[in-house]
Amino acid sequence: MSLSRRSFLAASASVAALPLVGCSTVSLTPAVTTVAPGIARVRVGNFSVTSLPDGVAVRPLAEGFVRNASLAQVQAALAEAGLPTDSVTVPFTPMLVDTGSRKILLDGGNGTFGAPTSGKLLESLGKAGLQPSQIDTIVISHFHGDHINGLRSKEGALTFPNAKILVPAPEWAWWMDDARMNAQPENARGNFMAVRRVFGPIAQTVERFEPGRELLPGIRSMPAFGHTAGHTSFMVESGGQKLLYWADTTNIAPLFVRNPDWAVMFDADPEAARKVRRGLMEMAVKENLLVAGYHLTLPGIGRLTPRGNGYDFKPVA
Amino acid sequence: MSLSRRSFLAASASVAALPLVGCSTVSLTPAVTTVAPGIARVRVGNFSVTSLPDGVAVRPLAEGFVRNASLAQVQAALAEAGLPTDSVTVPFTPMLVDTGSRKILLDGGNGTFGAPTSGKLLESLGKAGLQPSQIDTIVISHFHGDHINGLRSKEGALTFPNAKILVPAPEWAWWMDDARMNAQPENARGNFMAVRRVFGPIAQTVERFEPGRELLPGIRSMPAFGHTAGHTSFMVESGGQKLLYWADTTNIAPLFVRNPDWAVMFDADPEAARKVRRGLMEMAVKENLLVAGYHLTLPGIGRLTPRGNGYDFKPVA
Repeated sequence: MSLSRRSFLAASASVAALPLVGCSTVSLTPAVTTVAPGIARVRVGNFSVTSLPDGVAVRPLAEGFVRNASLAQVQAALAEAGLPTDSVTVPFTPMLVDTGSRKILLDGGNGTFGAPTSGKLLESLGKAGLQPSQIDTIVISHFHGDHINGLRSKEGALTFPNAKILVPAPEWAWWMDDARMNAQPENARGNFMAVRRVFGPIAQTVERFEPGRELLPGIRSMPAFGHTAGHTSFMVESGGQKLLYWADTTNIAPLFVRNPDWAVMFDADPEAARKVRRGLMEMAVKENLLVAGYHLTLPGIGRLTPRGNGYDFKPVA
Repeated sequence: MSLSRRSFLAASASVAALPLVGCSTVSLTPAVTTVAPGIARVRVGNFSVTSLPDGVAVRPLAEGFVRNASLAQVQAALAEAGLPTDSVTVPFTPMLVDTGSRKILLDGGNGTFGAPTSGKLLESLGKAGLQPSQIDTIVISHFHGDHINGLRSKEGALTFPNAKILVPAPEWAWWMDDARMNAQPENARGNFMAVRRVFGPIAQTVERFEPGRELLPGIRSMPAFGHTAGHTSFMVESGGQKLLYWADTTNIAPLFVRNPDWAVMFDADPEAARKVRRGLMEMAVKENLLVAGYHLTLPGIGRLTPRGNGYDFKPVA
């Protein structure tokens, strides 16, 4: 007698929810649960990691989106992936790490400060069965607005009222430097203003860490400077299993995983960012890591496979 | 026996400080006191108006600073005024209206969010003999950062803790509209962020007024839309004397008072701004008004005299 589709899915979900207690060997294929469209939960040892989509921004595609590739080259890469060639749809995907004892949010979404098609983090959190008050820790990869604006509402209220916020110290130093802000042309000061809006009034309670430190048991920060001055990636590790959250080491996969030497317009130091990208991708393949990224194809968690001069990103679900 | 210079100045100051009680005719030449360099106090009936310089920004001059004049034309105008032709020095000058019963600050300065040569409002206030806690009312002309950033510190504290803040309702509506912000390209969102940083957390206590209203006895708001959607000027009137605070109706005088049809790059609607500029200048000359402006030649208060297709601005001191 064959299992119905529904009972098969239910059985998979149950297996996925079991902790891998007492296993002497660790499966290389982690259990995956699809909570809702775009929301996948993967098991990493005794932890789970859940993607929490914050929505997307649709950008008209123009020369310059990729600094070192022509519009025609970019369009060809999009067409090869079966995507529209007149725009780029960029997802924003914070991640939730549940260690059993802690609920850790990796990056904070756009709030009401991004594209109207964004700002859906709390909706995703609800679909994953959680309230904002249940988040006890927030770890920020870098200070671009799409990663931090969601932390405080337009009225200034903390979105996650019980969460301790941890941020990379070099990122704080760079953006909070008034002399640096003031040396920028007016049209380059918006993100400095966003950083001041979010962090100025809570400066005393935000913990700044040196990238490289293990922040919490199983959550190690890794310097990944280049996209911004203090951009940081994170290795989530439990029971011998690992997931690399590389944040903005790449923008969308069909362009920047396929072509790791391409530099998106948002990379502050394109060459440093390129080296970080190449390094983390080589590591991911060599160690067959689960990779999660803020702008990767939904659900934003998957694996890399080598292809030509770059890689393919295969989402888990 | 002739008066020494010092006792002459002291005598002038005493005269300037006398209210014009019982005068049946009003002098067209108001008493002027120079409090410190750049800080002038003029008497307007029973009120005094004091310029409180917040410093300057020095902008490298480039094509486009004036939207509808060539770089050569702009340089010629600067040279005619005896100014450098490779940069433009833009003063920022909030004004203090002391009505006897109230101390009203018109616009709030850059705080620590502008050029390093700015942010000197509190220093000027001190030179004028006042503490920030003594300001009871703040009236804002429009929401560009150099007018509002000084209202709250980087840490979020109110700079003028006892002041009620009054802002133009159409300015609030325009900048606080999330859909409008989100429709802008990233590099045009900085001021939206500044507005949210300053006003988001104090939205409940900020009073929004419809331009045209008399805000307080002797302080009438006047719609002057064009520089921004809700840009507002103010007529200060007491004892039959008037001072027009036109805020950003012009940028620096040698360019935009001399050439009222020129549009500075910061004018959101150049043609609307031009009409406002022409209208207020004609009124100022016809009524021989004292004029104060945020970016005028220090001390930022003076009178207009017609010249060619435009005017000259003659500072009071």
